[in-house]
Amino acid sequence: MSGSKTLGSGEVLCAEVITIGDEILRGEIVDSNKALMSERLHDAEVETRFHTSVLDHPAEMADAFRRAVSRADVVLVSGGLGPTRDDLTTEVLADTFGCDLVLDEASLETIRGFFRHLGRDMSDNNAKQAYFPSGAEVLANPVGTAPGFMMEVPFGAEGGDEGAGAGFERVALIFTMPGVPRELALMLEEQVLPRVLARMNHGANNAAGGQGGRAMRARLLRTFGLGESSLDAELQHFARDAGVELGFRTAFPDNYLRPVVRAASAEEADSRLEEACREIRAHLGDVVYGEGDETMAAAVGRLLTEHGATIATAESCTGGLVAEKLTEIPGSSSYVMGGVVAYANEIKTALLGVSEALLKEYGAVSEPVAIAMAEGVRERFDTDFGVSTTGISGPDGGAEEKPVGTVCVALARRGAATHVERFVFPLDRIRHRMLTAQVALDWVRRSLLGVELVGPSLLRRRGGGSMPAGGQK
Amino acid sequence: MSGSKTLGSGEVLCAEVITIGDEILRGEIVDSNKALMSERLHDAEVETRFHTSVLDHPAEMADAFRRAVSRADVVLVSGGLGPTRDDLTTEVLADTFGCDLVLDEASLETIRGFFRHLGRDMSDNNAKQAYFPSGAEVLANPVGTAPGFMMEVPFGAEGGDEGAGAGFERVALIFTMPGVPRELALMLEEQVLPRVLARMNHGANNAAGGQGGRAMRARLLRTFGLGESSLDAELQHFARDAGVELGFRTAFPDNYLRPVVRAASAEEADSRLEEACREIRAHLGDVVYGEGDETMAAAVGRLLTEHGATIATAESCTGGLVAEKLTEIPGSSSYVMGGVVAYANEIKTALLGVSEALLKEYGAVSEPVAIAMAEGVRERFDTDFGVSTTGISGPDGGAEEKPVGTVCVALARRGAATHVERFVFPLDRIRHRMLTAQVALDWVRRSLLGVELVGPSLLRRRGGGSMPAGGQK
Repeated sequence: MSGSKTLGSGEVLCAEVITIGDEILRGEIVDSNKALMSERLHDAEVETRFHTSVLDHPAEMADAFRRAVSRADVVLVSGGLGPTRDDLTTEVLADTFGCDLVLDEASLETIRGFFRHLGRDMSDNNAKQAYFPSGAEVLANPVGTAPGFMMEVPFGAEGGDEGAGAGFERVALIFTMPGVPRELALMLEEQVLPRVLARMNHGANNAAGGQGGRAMRARLLRTFGLGESSLDAELQHFARDAGVELGFRTAFPDNYLRPVVRAASAEEADSRLEEACREIRAHLGDVVYGEGDETMAAAVGRLLTEHGATIATAESCTGGLVAEKLTEIPGSSSYVMGGVVAYANEIKTALLGVSEALLKEYGAVSEPVAIAMAEGVRERFDTDFGVSTTGISGPDGGAEEKPVGTVCVALARRGAATHVERFVFPLDRIRHRMLTAQVALDWVRRSLLGVELVGPSLLRRRGGGSMPAGGQK
Repeated sequence: MSGSKTLGSGEVLCAEVITIGDEILRGEIVDSNKALMSERLHDAEVETRFHTSVLDHPAEMADAFRRAVSRADVVLVSGGLGPTRDDLTTEVLADTFGCDLVLDEASLETIRGFFRHLGRDMSDNNAKQAYFPSGAEVLANPVGTAPGFMMEVPFGAEGGDEGAGAGFERVALIFTMPGVPRELALMLEEQVLPRVLARMNHGANNAAGGQGGRAMRARLLRTFGLGESSLDAELQHFARDAGVELGFRTAFPDNYLRPVVRAASAEEADSRLEEACREIRAHLGDVVYGEGDETMAAAVGRLLTEHGATIATAESCTGGLVAEKLTEIPGSSSYVMGGVVAYANEIKTALLGVSEALLKEYGAVSEPVAIAMAEGVRERFDTDFGVSTTGISGPDGGAEEKPVGTVCVALARRGAATHVERFVFPLDRIRHRMLTAQVALDWVRRSLLGVELVGPSLLRRRGGGSMPAGGQK
């Protein structure tokens, strides 16, 4: 296949991500590999323009491969490299682009070694994982038996890209990776992305009149407490003429904003993005809790660490979710002392010191009980913060004065008043628990920031009050 | 557009699922809508053959729509119906298939009413959600502001399907739905699937020589404890000639099996599937913990309920994950009393009665401490089962004799010996916690079933011993 170069300078590489497997098309799995691949491509300034998934079906796989090389410079393929009978990716790629399948002895030995290391013989079906299309470059898989590979294929006749540098023979790079997420993640990072970056640089160096090229920069701002259309309304005068694209998305219980900036140079894009984020934060204030992959629990952990503060949890309806989110963060053992899941009332009394009289008078789902739980766990665990949840996540258990969805959240603080609020979240059980846990975490964050402890509202405008019609801001 | 009918009898309808949004292609979200749509289509015996995602980019959206109607009978589109400036689905669909955009007064009033109900005025940008392609049928959205719609479009000239009934003008049905998962889920269930089913029946009724058609049946079997290729090897003599397709997939920490049967009638498919599942269970035994959407925690909950037994948790490294999984199940308050997240050693002592001497002699991550935690929580919560986890999930905290990944799990039982085991799972923090929690839950299940309490192994063959090479079974 052609080794000649591909790209004029200044072009943004365009990618297609193809995942293969009947289980995807039957909806048996949520295919998170596509998001991972696109995210990492995006970080590398390669724009994913298409996601495609097809069945383990040779004709449809071949069609997808041909179409991809007609419209993308980089094609990432995952799935279909396994040892089982429905794994066809290697064969179909070889067939589609007219290559033979060749045994790679080194890979066979590696796979044998993998099994030897585990003290067992290699299955026959694993041997097929050592065959590759002729001319392909093998990509090592240090954590599994299926190696991936890279092929170069002439950019299809069907389309070409409007930006293709005339006079250069353009090729598409196809990378295959296993569908097992952790094997894919490692191969993507260590084998695929370095080759994509090398190709980008090579392309730019070879092009006539290379001059640095266009750059794209983006950042994810995570918000909690405002609905998507409120966010859009808040920001409607922002960025429209400033050349900043603003993406919105709901990731319950959060909403994310994604400002994207394109500029002639990376430096310019960086500085314009920085300015855009500053402006967005000025509009939204403490509604923005984090950036990038910083979850609410990570933001809380960062603030607790900065303040040298500790926390304990007393959970009824969330059943351990608040503790689980806090402790998911590496290093959380320095500020999380632990918690109590007090599902039964006896446990609220025995382990948290909630008096039986209080439970009897107000019921388990009540402000006084939430306060007693939060204060009880804070005192017993001797922490700076104690957070509690008690509610009716449903689907059963509601009553007229306390319908399903009712929940009380309390935050006890060393040396400060305990804050409590009652909400009714008309959500299913899973989302009710998620939203309740996020409110609890957000209050810890807000308390550490010294800002008002407010609950979520899809309607609330910062500063309270009702929301005026859009366009009047 | 044509109202004439579409399908010969006996055909399986074929679907394409298209999701739209820059955030998907940038990898900012894991697009779970595609899986949901395909799963429900599959249940309705419609086969999803393609998943496609494109940017909020009119030309690429139009191209995807045209291609879809050339190869699918049913096209489900999600995303791009929102009020914000990057929502283009309605406009592009109208444009692609030559329709005008028409205001639907009823929808406008519904959207206005939605906001009135919330005590605020409608934003201008929400009004655009009341415009639809002429001839489209509006699909109500009772939980959000964006209605969906259904369009009928002549099946494209590009392809047609080999199965198309000659003499019938074939049309594709396009359904649009919002991208917000819960809005989509409800609209899919209440608006889209009934229309798809009606079309299938209508097609069959109209077709010459209709005779019941081919039926497809599938079931998901959930397994824990055996790796994918061991499962495949175990089942290699199964089903190959029995007309049962067997799909495998890893959904860490589980592996799922999906037997799929096609037959001339639904009855035949049902009975052959039943037989296939019986045979698989006979091969794999207690490795199969559930079917369909029954999670491990749900299976445990079912068994606890059947036995009238109760449980409490004592978690260190899993930080609340075991309790969270147990309490996620509706009705779990009848068997989960609660738990303790004992992250700090002081909490292990104060709340679970683990002696300081034990902690000092063996360290927090040790079999004796795991036993003391499990027995401590079982006694204090007065439950039938007490389950504990203590380990080093990483990334830091390992030592030579207890490397990162070390974990002890214990199960205390009323009136029976406590079971404890130490594992080293060489996994990242998140997966280490997931696997540990699943072992803990699986032991409760195994104990209730009266089978051996075993840990997971990617290699272990049931009954222990080393695994012979494939093909020798």
